Amino acid sequence: MVNRSVWWEQGQVRMIDQRQLPLHYEIANFDSIEGVVRSISDMYVRGAPAIGATAAYGMALAARLSLAAQPKAMVADLKQAKQRLDAARPTAVNLAWASARLLALATELAEQQVTTDEIRAEMLAEAERLAEQDIEINQSIGRYGAAIVPQGAHILHHCNTGSLATVDYGTALGVVRAAHAAGKGIHVWVDETRPRLQGARLTAWELMREDIPMHLIADNAAGLLMRTGKVNVVLFGADRVAANGDVANKIGTYNLAVLAQENGIPCYAAVPTPTIDLDLPDGDQIPIEERRWDEVATVFGKQIAPDNVPVYNPAFDITPHRYLTGIITDEGICYPPFTESLRRAKLSAETRLWEEHQH
Amino acid sequence: MVNRSVWWEQGQVRMIDQRQLPLHYEIANFDSIEGVVRSISDMYVRGAPAIGATAAYGMALAARLSLAAQPKAMVADLKQAKQRLDAARPTAVNLAWASARLLALATELAEQQVTTDEIRAEMLAEAERLAEQDIEINQSIGRYGAAIVPQGAHILHHCNTGSLATVDYGTALGVVRAAHAAGKGIHVWVDETRPRLQGARLTAWELMREDIPMHLIADNAAGLLMRTGKVNVVLFGADRVAANGDVANKIGTYNLAVLAQENGIPCYAAVPTPTIDLDLPDGDQIPIEERRWDEVATVFGKQIAPDNVPVYNPAFDITPHRYLTGIITDEGICYPPFTESLRRAKLSAETRLWEEHQH
Repeated sequence: MVNRSVWWEQGQVRMIDQRQLPLHYEIANFDSIEGVVRSISDMYVRGAPAIGATAAYGMALAARLSLAAQPKAMVADLKQAKQRLDAARPTAVNLAWASARLLALATELAEQQVTTDEIRAEMLAEAERLAEQDIEINQSIGRYGAAIVPQGAHILHHCNTGSLATVDYGTALGVVRAAHAAGKGIHVWVDETRPRLQGARLTAWELMREDIPMHLIADNAAGLLMRTGKVNVVLFGADRVAANGDVANKIGTYNLAVLAQENGIPCYAAVPTPTIDLDLPDGDQIPIEERRWDEVATVFGKQIAPDNVPVYNPAFDITPHRYLTGIITDEGICYPPFTESLRRAKLSAETRLWEEHQH
Repeated sequence: MVNRSVWWEQGQVRMIDQRQLPLHYEIANFDSIEGVVRSISDMYVRGAPAIGATAAYGMALAARLSLAAQPKAMVADLKQAKQRLDAARPTAVNLAWASARLLALATELAEQQVTTDEIRAEMLAEAERLAEQDIEINQSIGRYGAAIVPQGAHILHHCNTGSLATVDYGTALGVVRAAHAAGKGIHVWVDETRPRLQGARLTAWELMREDIPMHLIADNAAGLLMRTGKVNVVLFGADRVAANGDVANKIGTYNLAVLAQENGIPCYAAVPTPTIDLDLPDGDQIPIEERRWDEVATVFGKQIAPDNVPVYNPAFDITPHRYLTGIITDEGICYPPFTESLRRAKLSAETRLWEEHQH
């Protein structure tokens, strides 16, 4: 393991407090649902898969804290907990996906007349399984993705998609790790990723810890680098992928995809299959979260704009599928037409999960 | 006048210390050539026309400080001063253009056997003329440019091109001012413009002082706004324009121009004719200044990335002319083919200057 982002310890949900990185490495502990909700909404933890795992541990915590004596009453408590957890961030599909998976298990168990203590134990076991599966998914994404990274490639990377964005290893940064481990002699241009600077704070920190060659850049420098032939592949993650391949990801992703296409540079999203939402026909259906003005008007608490400046601060944008060369998943690389390839990947992953469930 | 950026007072070059804005409004005074060079290289003053005026006042200061008893010796001192001033920032053509204009006048006067005191007086008068002409040029850019701004337009603006970037009024922001004054009911999306945040610090400050409706955005949000129909025109300035219309401007400009074209949005550079360099066939000949790592790794002195992070920090990029709808100048709006229209604008401006010189 590289940098486990979130885990269960001594009856609490624990995580790296990513708001403090890279200046301070601190572990935060949460022993209430309020706390877990806050850890997501205040971005102690961020990144769709890491949020999913946090929600799963949050559901295990809700079972642990529930005073219900009967399984049905415990399920009612868990439904409440799920509602509160799901409301913490509106865009990430993994959040509701993970909490639903744990609620479904509890509901199933309640119907089997097990004890509440057994439900508690099974909820925790399921959260741990979900976290382990995320790590396996990322390693699989890394294996498939490394194949499209040329020898000596300069990779442009947006936001943070690494250990810190997932449970461990990472999606797009998992591809970077796998390509580096395969001896491809890569170099990474790290978009700082305003406004929250996940690239400068987290991706740079992860890459430097592993001596993967990199340079930090202002997001504005990406175009110049692409136009002057200094980028061989553009890689990013996704918070949500629609059935047609439209991708919701960190604000600025769309800019990169357009610039990549204009300059004939391959451009890939790296995503776990749970992030693919076949119920969404296209990206226009994905709600865009707007965040607070102070994320733009201040940096690490330092004011950078006039008092009372009006700010527009969308956290995500939609990249239409026509700008993507491919979508790297744990089931292989999906190419256009994405409607078909994503459906195949998603079904393959669900079949695998179902088969594992049978054993 | 709105916010005069640089002026002459009591034998000194004075300017708004733009590094302190928007938190503090301070005036800096320079009474040596070292100081004036530092005011440019350390970016007390920035923006091509403002740098040009600063260099002109710097030459007037060099004449004032020169101990030469003979005109020829004074010209030698001025040549030295010009060399030092020109080296302060490599990309801006206005710097060398302004210092050359003052040196040429001194050389001409020296041949006419005038006294060194007369040269001193004429150098200051010429610097003042250059500053006044810059203001007139900007007002002319504003008049021409306002015509292409639709009623109720949302204007996306990059960097600072306002009073603070020029001597006063501004180029692209001069167009914004003129459109606002014409009652067009405009609204401005202000790119914060990383890494140095000229948009957040300076453009927001200028617009808020005049109650021109605006929102500050992270540079990354520009693509989303354009794709969702919330931008009607993209406006920026230029540090240098080549004969074919290629534009060197603040890093990130190329990104905006590509995004504008992709979304069918008109995109204009607003430039004074002295910024047009007919001797440069195209943008590939323009040197790109690389600036210090700490402009990216720190914000207002606050560290935002890991210790010793490697940084690539180009200050400008080149936008090929094919992405521009037009180039707004003080002689009118130039449209493709730019090689012809820019030459006409430049010649018209030089003819006007020559005629004024005769009176």
